[in-house]
Amino acid sequence: MPIYTCTTARGTLRPEDKAALAAEVTRIHSTVNHVPSTYINVVFNELPTEDVYTDGRPARPLIINGWVRSGHPDDETSRLVTEVAEAATRVTGIPAERVLVVIGNSPARFAIEGGRVLPDPGQEQAWLAGKI
Amino acid sequence: MPIYTCTTARGTLRPEDKAALAAEVTRIHSTVNHVPSTYINVVFNELPTEDVYTDGRPARPLIINGWVRSGHPDDETSRLVTEVAEAATRVTGIPAERVLVVIGNSPARFAIEGGRVLPDPGQEQAWLAGKI
Amino acid sequence: MPIYTCTTARGTLRPEDKAALAAEVTRIHSTVNHVPSTYINVVFNELPTEDVYTDGRPARPLIINGWVRSGHPDDETSRLVTEVAEAATRVTGIPAERVLVVIGNSPARFAIEGGRVLPDPGQEQAWLAGKI
Repeated sequence: MPIYTCTTARGTLRPEDKAALAAEVTRIHSTVNHVPSTYINVVFNELPTEDVYTDGRPARPLIINGWVRSGHPDDETSRLVTEVAEAATRVTGIPAERVLVVIGNSPARFAIEGGRVLPDPGQEQAWLAGKI
Repeated sequence: MPIYTCTTARGTLRPEDKAALAAEVTRIHSTVNHVPSTYINVVFNELPTEDVYTDGRPARPLIINGWVRSGHPDDETSRLVTEVAEAATRVTGIPAERVLVVIGNSPARFAIEGGRVLPDPGQEQAWLAGKI
Repeated sequence: MPIYTCTTARGTLRPEDKAALAAEVTRIHSTVNHVPSTYINVVFNELPTEDVYTDGRPARPLIINGWVRSGHPDDETSRLVTEVAEAATRVTGIPAERVLVVIGNSPARFAIEGGRVLPDPGQEQAWLAGKI
């Protein structure tokens, strides 16, 4: 259900960083938001170095955009971004100052996967069992 | 007004799939959300195969992210994602299990096109006629 | 804190357009939303010409997606998109008809930068001073 897009200038991440970060984000999201890991997508969008700016100048941030269904407790989402950001620094060595994690949200019923509209937070087990 | 971004690993879609999917998404959105097709944008973001992960492993999902103005009836947006997902499978042959469609939303007044801030849902005709 | 993603078909923007647009978006956002420019990210996602559609046909729009923290006055965000769209046309020469700016939003506590969860609008000074 969730999607994380990691945007960087090319060369910011090594290939092994990407695999390791995808694994960590998947583990963290699954734990914090109670979603089976099979539903978690992580993609990397590496752009030419001249196409990434901070403060109007070429820069090398690691920008992680996620999406979750509305209705998770806010505290949970703060914990999610905190753990993802810590993992990003731990896995990639990029200092926290260059790591930005932003989670967007919209209603579960604005999303579909496997041919079925997503369940609200808390309804995952019934949905997975095919009961809703 | 709307934007749909289709993210895949390279080689997931054939060139003719992309043109056909863009046409179908445009047709569906125009019908369900009452927006002239001239305002509907569909882009494809094809990433290297090693940059797309599901469950922490390289994978080949078709991820479609859309954006709509807040204020459409929720049912309408559920119908929108359902029809877009069905069209994605029908046009590309990718099974429903690998298709994820997510619509984000924000207020119409947070968006601008053709130099004019967008109208709330229901105000399209007046806006198109230049009356608001 | 904010992120702007400018999506185009390749060749729509000249290299100098990108640097100038990044500078302008940074200046405008900093002024309107009271965010130090050092926190403003602008990235360009240039796609193959056959991967960008408007009205179901290959096209050359300039699509600018931004993200802001929820809680800014709505008027301020309308001013933001208006000024960004005007700057886009002024800097790049692309007519307003092909420029679409959309700002998404989610709670500040759904985002983290520099290892700290973001402050709500209005709390920037205390946050920057390390007091919250």
